[in-house]
Amino acid sequence: MTLQVGVIGVGMIGQEHIARLARKLTGARIVAISDINAKEAERVAAGVPGAKVYASGEALIKASEVQAVVVTTWGQTHEAYVLAAIEAGKPVFCEKPLATTAEACLRIVQAEIASGRHLVQVGFQRRYDKGYRALKKTIDDGVIGAPLMIHCAHRNPSVPEAYVSDMAIIDTFIHEIDALRWLINDDYVSAQVFTPRKTRHTHAKLDDPIIVVLRTKGGVHIDGEVFVNCRYGYDIQCQVVGEEGIANLPEPESVLLRREGRLSTAIGQDWKMRFIDSYDVELQDWIKAATTGKISGPSAWDGYFAAVTADACLEAKRTGETASIVTPPRPAFYD
Amino acid sequence: MTLQVGVIGVGMIGQEHIARLARKLTGARIVAISDINAKEAERVAAGVPGAKVYASGEALIKASEVQAVVVTTWGQTHEAYVLAAIEAGKPVFCEKPLATTAEACLRIVQAEIASGRHLVQVGFQRRYDKGYRALKKTIDDGVIGAPLMIHCAHRNPSVPEAYVSDMAIIDTFIHEIDALRWLINDDYVSAQVFTPRKTRHTHAKLDDPIIVVLRTKGGVHIDGEVFVNCRYGYDIQCQVVGEEGIANLPEPESVLLRREGRLSTAIGQDWKMRFIDSYDVELQDWIKAATTGKISGPSAWDGYFAAVTADACLEAKRTGETASIVTPPRPAFYD
Amino acid sequence: MTLQVGVIGVGMIGQEHIARLARKLTGARIVAISDINAKEAERVAAGVPGAKVYASGEALIKASEVQAVVVTTWGQTHEAYVLAAIEAGKPVFCEKPLATTAEACLRIVQAEIASGRHLVQVGFQRRYDKGYRALKKTIDDGVIGAPLMIHCAHRNPSVPEAYVSDMAIIDTFIHEIDALRWLINDDYVSAQVFTPRKTRHTHAKLDDPIIVVLRTKGGVHIDGEVFVNCRYGYDIQCQVVGEEGIANLPEPESVLLRREGRLSTAIGQDWKMRFIDSYDVELQDWIKAATTGKISGPSAWDGYFAAVTADACLEAKRTGETASIVTPPRPAFYD
Amino acid sequence: MTLQVGVIGVGMIGQEHIARLARKLTGARIVAISDINAKEAERVAAGVPGAKVYASGEALIKASEVQAVVVTTWGQTHEAYVLAAIEAGKPVFCEKPLATTAEACLRIVQAEIASGRHLVQVGFQRRYDKGYRALKKTIDDGVIGAPLMIHCAHRNPSVPEAYVSDMAIIDTFIHEIDALRWLINDDYVSAQVFTPRKTRHTHAKLDDPIIVVLRTKGGVHIDGEVFVNCRYGYDIQCQVVGEEGIANLPEPESVLLRREGRLSTAIGQDWKMRFIDSYDVELQDWIKAATTGKISGPSAWDGYFAAVTADACLEAKRTGETASIVTPPRPAFYD
Repeated sequence: MTLQVGVIGVGMIGQEHIARLARKLTGARIVAISDINAKEAERVAAGVPGAKVYASGEALIKASEVQAVVVTTWGQTHEAYVLAAIEAGKPVFCEKPLATTAEACLRIVQAEIASGRHLVQVGFQRRYDKGYRALKKTIDDGVIGAPLMIHCAHRNPSVPEAYVSDMAIIDTFIHEIDALRWLINDDYVSAQVFTPRKTRHTHAKLDDPIIVVLRTKGGVHIDGEVFVNCRYGYDIQCQVVGEEGIANLPEPESVLLRREGRLSTAIGQDWKMRFIDSYDVELQDWIKAATTGKISGPSAWDGYFAAVTADACLEAKRTGETASIVTPPRPAFYD
Repeated sequence: MTLQVGVIGVGMIGQEHIARLARKLTGARIVAISDINAKEAERVAAGVPGAKVYASGEALIKASEVQAVVVTTWGQTHEAYVLAAIEAGKPVFCEKPLATTAEACLRIVQAEIASGRHLVQVGFQRRYDKGYRALKKTIDDGVIGAPLMIHCAHRNPSVPEAYVSDMAIIDTFIHEIDALRWLINDDYVSAQVFTPRKTRHTHAKLDDPIIVVLRTKGGVHIDGEVFVNCRYGYDIQCQVVGEEGIANLPEPESVLLRREGRLSTAIGQDWKMRFIDSYDVELQDWIKAATTGKISGPSAWDGYFAAVTADACLEAKRTGETASIVTPPRPAFYD
Repeated sequence: MTLQVGVIGVGMIGQEHIARLARKLTGARIVAISDINAKEAERVAAGVPGAKVYASGEALIKASEVQAVVVTTWGQTHEAYVLAAIEAGKPVFCEKPLATTAEACLRIVQAEIASGRHLVQVGFQRRYDKGYRALKKTIDDGVIGAPLMIHCAHRNPSVPEAYVSDMAIIDTFIHEIDALRWLINDDYVSAQVFTPRKTRHTHAKLDDPIIVVLRTKGGVHIDGEVFVNCRYGYDIQCQVVGEEGIANLPEPESVLLRREGRLSTAIGQDWKMRFIDSYDVELQDWIKAATTGKISGPSAWDGYFAAVTADACLEAKRTGETASIVTPPRPAFYD
Repeated sequence: MTLQVGVIGVGMIGQEHIARLARKLTGARIVAISDINAKEAERVAAGVPGAKVYASGEALIKASEVQAVVVTTWGQTHEAYVLAAIEAGKPVFCEKPLATTAEACLRIVQAEIASGRHLVQVGFQRRYDKGYRALKKTIDDGVIGAPLMIHCAHRNPSVPEAYVSDMAIIDTFIHEIDALRWLINDDYVSAQVFTPRKTRHTHAKLDDPIIVVLRTKGGVHIDGEVFVNCRYGYDIQCQVVGEEGIANLPEPESVLLRREGRLSTAIGQDWKMRFIDSYDVELQDWIKAATTGKISGPSAWDGYFAAVTADACLEAKRTGETASIVTPPRPAFYD
């Protein structure tokens, strides 16, 4: 009943997932590790009793002792590994993005459908965050009635120089892109991007902040602020306005202080701490799903839809116009 | 030292201002009242010792005992009364709108400049609200750095059948139009309007909610939700995102309750109660300003700018496109 | 209809009340001023058109043009002035304390009853604070059911060296003593005082903080923290625990800030600002009551009851034991 | 490296711990189960692969395959099982109370000292609650300076008829008794108990609410409200007042709702849900500690100190007087 997992990619997120699978979660053990940097793979594997190093991701996927695969490599390599896992008939957890182009994502979708089994889960961990789940339950329970609008914000205290404009969509807002359609069970039909004046804390190659406006099939209007040099903290806000009331994503719990003339709570500085618990829930859920053969998390279709939406946002930003978000109808396979 | 005031128009807001001037505020007394409905004028005047009824607003304005004028009639009549007051060289407080077209507002601006004296104040009372003032002070003090974005919402629990789509701009969002440019000392250059799916609580002639997006000369991006059948209460939200931090309009103070599984405060249902104190401050300030000859509240230019902006919002809503907000340069007279 | 007021005592609070009566409130004008320091009385009167200076408080009270009296002198002199006003049959607003001993307060009570008219109001301004009024309405409306306990705190950032232990009861907690019995329509029967370890920010002659425990006739348990060197701000907390729920005194409204890793609102530093509006409401209410002859604010009996309670608290603190709070039955006159 | 655990007692809490150890936590497996009700032990063991049923707790403790013991039986039996585990030299996790009398607790303390090894951990799970830990860190980091007072409340929506007065101390406030001295690294020296008027929602054998006042060696004053028929929810409040500021236990995170005229968050109804995560952390920590032989959670001494304190609270309640809390000096073994 213990799932034998192989991990491809031992970068930061890979090592974190390895630690999780090996020491924190139940029901899985790591039997195989691979990385393009073989030495690093050896070094990491040395800390994981029972883990064997494989020369390539492909070899790892094929290994008979590997029952399920975690892909945490560079995005460019995702497509090949995920397709190989599908071919091998093994459940695969792939960190976002599912692939670097919408076309590649669609190839994965088609391969999975052809395989006849749900094998692919994409690493959109917000769906496993306690706060988002509580918010979704509130909406699903009808507490606020039918959603009409969402106002949200994704703020980081600062980003490194290497972070340029497209990343605000592809790396940052991509989380909202997946989480919001899951939250309200709807899909997007168009995108528009506004670029307010730039903060003095950004650099030449980064428009910061930006506002992304999405419209859904159901007519829900979404405005999402992305502000990655906001200085004050890592802050994720989400307010859903419904026909009967409004619900906000919970604030993380924090000691209330009275001090030096202020009544205050802390705002975290670190995105990882904000969502660290959700990574545990996500992978624990995946272990169980992979063990029972019932993958139910963010699917290849969700990964594809996110890619199409991100492309439309980039186009909208480039042109200043509204961009359409067009996909084939959702295959019944993903209902 | 007591300002002798004449009031034209004894409808609801007129009667409220009369009660304020007569019984609550200091430094003024009402010496003249006029209304198109002479009987009603007589009835109201009977409750105000020393108030004489005039057959017309024009006659009231010319009366020698009238030192300052309050106009609270139907909007269509504002222009004529305000121009008459300017001609008479008397300070005039005119409820919003200053006039019903941008052209009429501009005529008032030109007449006031020609008179060489600041005589006109428009009834944008939010500038006198304690919360808005605290928010403006926070911004002016540099606490959050240069403003980059404003997210705001204007929500009413419900509106009567007679309230139709244009009124969401002209009667409701007009308050934000004036307050926000005052808040950040900036002007608007363009408007765009989004129409999310309609709430089931609206009617055929009212698009509700809508989102108005304004851009300022300084590049500040504003998104304003107008939702007048939000059901849950009268709720005014305003969040200013700056380069160094974010400030929100204060929530009105309220008893915190622990009851029936909820930790809660009250949200008012009544726009009048939300801003009632600000009307007192506004008129008290005007009495003092009119007495000393130094009108400093929302000016004829502000009334004109609001009218031009509202027109652009209406056009943007009609066309679905971005509408430009174009005015002549602000006359030095209004610096 | 304008009440002609004489003010005895032009210290800080006297000058504030004079400014209020002369320039901010309606329905009164100051016709007489007196102070033990005649020069200071002259100086202050010079700024109040129509105010005549009297050589003594007694002379002022007797002056025919004086219709009502405000006493803002040193506490030791209150009894004589209030008794004189009662004898003259004139409404008198006396700043707290009504008198410096319970016996003196009782003499005032007896004189007022003998006069057959309600003439005395004591300056317990919290009853006029918007927040306390909202809290009282919540209780009176039955929202939280019958009160069982009150947890409250009275905190100042710091006090001067001259502030010694007894003042924590007599000058500071006295506000809670009056406000809490008014809040729950109950009387106290006993007091106990705890002295936690002293903060390092106090001095030898001041036990700070202390906890006062009061029990009411109805069995309500009250614990009141008095902490006058709390450093962080002027903070008044009051939580009423009822059979069906709990209500807290509202926090004063404040801009919500996101800045430097904190989500915060401001805590005021200044007791005067916290309650400044309530002084206006209190005196405006008194003007109206004095004009109509229907004094209804904190009565001489309330001043007496507060004095008896404060004495019991001091005794309880001295002995470390529970002290009884005993008064004659409340005269029907004060029902 | 997997800890082989035996569990004595398969009542509600026993079954929950078994589920935790067997399926949720890592590093342990259940090899032995015992209960006075043999059938129930069989039934529960049937769901735990590899768990053998023992006829008695004593037999289970002696079994060679059992490396560590969890005691979740009726309180009266705790002493014997814990002493047996000490004799067997095996780590033992004992649910609160450690034993039903202070004398029994002291015997355990002495036995553990005599054994020369730290073997006993008591199930005070609040020390593992995320909120309490954050509060303790705030205090330990000196953010609020030296603690002077603690105001706390332990409220349940309702209790069954079987819950009588002593249980408010022994079963309910016992959590505060342990948590607060841990929070501020201090011990209690005396207790006093107040009984406000009873809520109409209690019954003849239950004084509800009560207020427990504790004083520490360091002079910290603690007032703790215990209100187990508060109706509105399960609510744990803790405010620590320090020399430089004040810190409150965080509110559990909750969706913020705007609905029907209220701005609100949820208050849970269920004590178990409030602290469920802390049970996981507690037992995971114990598994690790038991495996490495370094028990560091709430000790036998803590269990003893809690028992002495609870006794003093009961005495104080019975007599209405202040009761002293006297223990031998803390043995160096527990430093």
